[in-house]
Amino acid sequence: MRLSRYFLPVLKETPAEAQIVSHRYMLRAGMIKQASAGIYSWLPMGFKVLRKIEDIIHEEQIRAGHIPLLMPTIQSADLWRESGRYDDYGQEMLRITDRHDRDLLFSPTAEELITDIFRSHVGSYKDLPLTLYQIQWKFRDEIRPRFGVMRGREFYMKDGYNFDLTKEAALHAYNRHLVSYLRTYERMGLQAIPMRADSGPIGGDDTHEFLVLAETGESEVFYDSAITDLKFGDRQIDYDSVEQCQAVLEEFTSRYARTDETHDEALFNEIPEDRRRVARGIEVGQIFYFGTKYSEPMGATVVDADGNRVPVHMGSHGIGVSRLLGAIIEASHDDKGIIWPEGVTPFHCGLVNLKQGDEAADTACQAIYASLTAIGLEPLYDDTAERAGAKFATMDLIGLPWRITVGPRGLKNGVVELTSRRTGASEELPPEHAIARIAAIYGKASA
Amino acid sequence: MRLSRYFLPVLKETPAEAQIVSHRYMLRAGMIKQASAGIYSWLPMGFKVLRKIEDIIHEEQIRAGHIPLLMPTIQSADLWRESGRYDDYGQEMLRITDRHDRDLLFSPTAEELITDIFRSHVGSYKDLPLTLYQIQWKFRDEIRPRFGVMRGREFYMKDGYNFDLTKEAALHAYNRHLVSYLRTYERMGLQAIPMRADSGPIGGDDTHEFLVLAETGESEVFYDSAITDLKFGDRQIDYDSVEQCQAVLEEFTSRYARTDETHDEALFNEIPEDRRRVARGIEVGQIFYFGTKYSEPMGATVVDADGNRVPVHMGSHGIGVSRLLGAIIEASHDDKGIIWPEGVTPFHCGLVNLKQGDEAADTACQAIYASLTAIGLEPLYDDTAERAGAKFATMDLIGLPWRITVGPRGLKNGVVELTSRRTGASEELPPEHAIARIAAIYGKASA
Repeated sequence: MRLSRYFLPVLKETPAEAQIVSHRYMLRAGMIKQASAGIYSWLPMGFKVLRKIEDIIHEEQIRAGHIPLLMPTIQSADLWRESGRYDDYGQEMLRITDRHDRDLLFSPTAEELITDIFRSHVGSYKDLPLTLYQIQWKFRDEIRPRFGVMRGREFYMKDGYNFDLTKEAALHAYNRHLVSYLRTYERMGLQAIPMRADSGPIGGDDTHEFLVLAETGESEVFYDSAITDLKFGDRQIDYDSVEQCQAVLEEFTSRYARTDETHDEALFNEIPEDRRRVARGIEVGQIFYFGTKYSEPMGATVVDADGNRVPVHMGSHGIGVSRLLGAIIEASHDDKGIIWPEGVTPFHCGLVNLKQGDEAADTACQAIYASLTAIGLEPLYDDTAERAGAKFATMDLIGLPWRITVGPRGLKNGVVELTSRRTGASEELPPEHAIARIAAIYGKASA
Repeated sequence: MRLSRYFLPVLKETPAEAQIVSHRYMLRAGMIKQASAGIYSWLPMGFKVLRKIEDIIHEEQIRAGHIPLLMPTIQSADLWRESGRYDDYGQEMLRITDRHDRDLLFSPTAEELITDIFRSHVGSYKDLPLTLYQIQWKFRDEIRPRFGVMRGREFYMKDGYNFDLTKEAALHAYNRHLVSYLRTYERMGLQAIPMRADSGPIGGDDTHEFLVLAETGESEVFYDSAITDLKFGDRQIDYDSVEQCQAVLEEFTSRYARTDETHDEALFNEIPEDRRRVARGIEVGQIFYFGTKYSEPMGATVVDADGNRVPVHMGSHGIGVSRLLGAIIEASHDDKGIIWPEGVTPFHCGLVNLKQGDEAADTACQAIYASLTAIGLEPLYDDTAERAGAKFATMDLIGLPWRITVGPRGLKNGVVELTSRRTGASEELPPEHAIARIAAIYGKASA
């Protein structure tokens, strides 16, 4: 993309309403714009990152054998009356009346609707196991929305639901989700620690939250520092294997890690003192096993091998998609701006022309741009007439992990500059070497 | 995908509520399920087609130089009061009150919000031309929703907005949209005819609707049959070229083609009698130029080259994404079920094992499945224990354009059967030839 043809409305000033760094940088980098309290428009660069995160989640869910579908945002109140949650949910539920005076609501989660889909179409244990999920906009009418997309009212969420014949099978689905979430967050450059949590209005006993450590986190967390050494890495997992998924769960949850809701001081004090950590964390996902809480009242049953009709065992599993952008920025930034991990960066690299209009510089930039594009990468080429300092400030603010800088002086020596946003380290090298380096970083075959 | 692990709840009976063929087949093929009146869940296969259509639209919009973003579904009433449409819109607008008694609405379209984004961030003619678009869920509280996704209340729509300095530039944007829409529909296997239309509540004088001819269309259409000979094909267009875009507009709109709203009997009668056609059509898109209708009252201005502040010229351009599934099925089906065009088919081909459990058949199917997957194609492998007749009926109903049938008898002679869903023609050939044929159809390099 050429910057002169893009819509990237960066702000010079820090907006007064933004209290945390991710909110400030998302506004300043032209990623979002508030439409009304807690409700945002995703400007082109924000939308681009949102889609990248969404794509990673889809890929990892499908890899785990889960099946995507899409439920509507507007749902009938009747279904929620069946489960008893219409009255329980309180004022966070956005309640709506249509022109025929029917009670509707903007879905804050979808246990009821997915259970209705299941009971309408599935009748036999032979159709199990089954895990269905969606990535869809949700609404919670927060009394005091704040922190930008971290605690918005309209938010994007992945919510998945497993249906299993037995508790054991449902716990395997639970473990499978834990594994797929570890992979998912790592691909986004995040370390998200599964912590024993409280189930809240979803219900159930077994639940883990995934927390990203960050000073601005809303939760206080207590953990054994040994847990931050764990990496999922690129290990291969057979998601059908009960043993393999169980082993990952044990590896990642056997050490103490809890939020303040479930914190147990006595247990915590059993950790060697030098490994006890108290910090703050941002919740980016949660998994639940809740048994027959919805299937029983709503009649979601299957006939088992003995011919008996039994309610299915269920769980639900969520990832806060839109809030992940905030969490990633909280975890990865400096005082100049965002530092995107390679897995989610909106553009693979920046390309700065130090002297737009200089024939050699323009030609070299166009050639580099064409080469990067040809190998399937997407550079952001600053082809504007801005001065170099302003171009660098914008690139630092928007946080592309790599930058190629092209100027007449370097070209005379046959070199351009390759700069890492994370370390700030720069290196002079011939254009084709810079291209090969970027290609290698993103696992692309260089032409 | 293996059918035994998928969620494809096909129905044997025709649902009584479905009056038109696309609605019937979408329900029977397990693509959608009604959640409440005019509101649908998109079951896995329906969601898959929806995403393919969405991806085509994104690709063609980006090719035309338009920039994607995403606006929220819930918007503040205040913005709509500024343009005067809050009161004008009537009961089709879903009006909502939040916990703080603020007036909100579920967006039926987004001229106001995009204009607000524009006026907040753009101030100079140098930032023009600019076209921003989104693909987002909308809501219109239809008094009598019907015909499935063709006239639903919650629907998926691409809506794009151009901002230009002059009327001439805005008309180029209009033409550019017309060209990109022609390409878009053709890639979906549709012939959508641009017809002079009425602007309705959007406003403006210049507007064309795109209509797909189908007996069940909601509009009566009148056209010169010569228009159906026009094909966009794979011609290359420079979207920046005013002349090239104008030439396409003239080619595709110079012949008589109008809906009943703008029909002119006298003009129609000037066409040679043997080319006059009266038929029915389904509206799948519409483009508008409306000048300064929103920019003037909302203060969306730029400073021009002479230093004067002038309101921008705008247009908006929509494609009915969710309704396109219905339109494609209305245009492409037979009495056995859907016939997907290759561009939007949920799976590239079906793979039917005539004798699941037979070692030779199972092995051959797995090998074919692996080969197709390896070249980037997605087959749907019916690996269930159903009898052959039922497997064929399901494949015909869900309408994958190609089917490979594998049975022990054929394998003894070294052949499988390749069947075209559209023509019904079958051919026996060695498995590797069948794979090569499917690869060629979808433009993939065969291994």
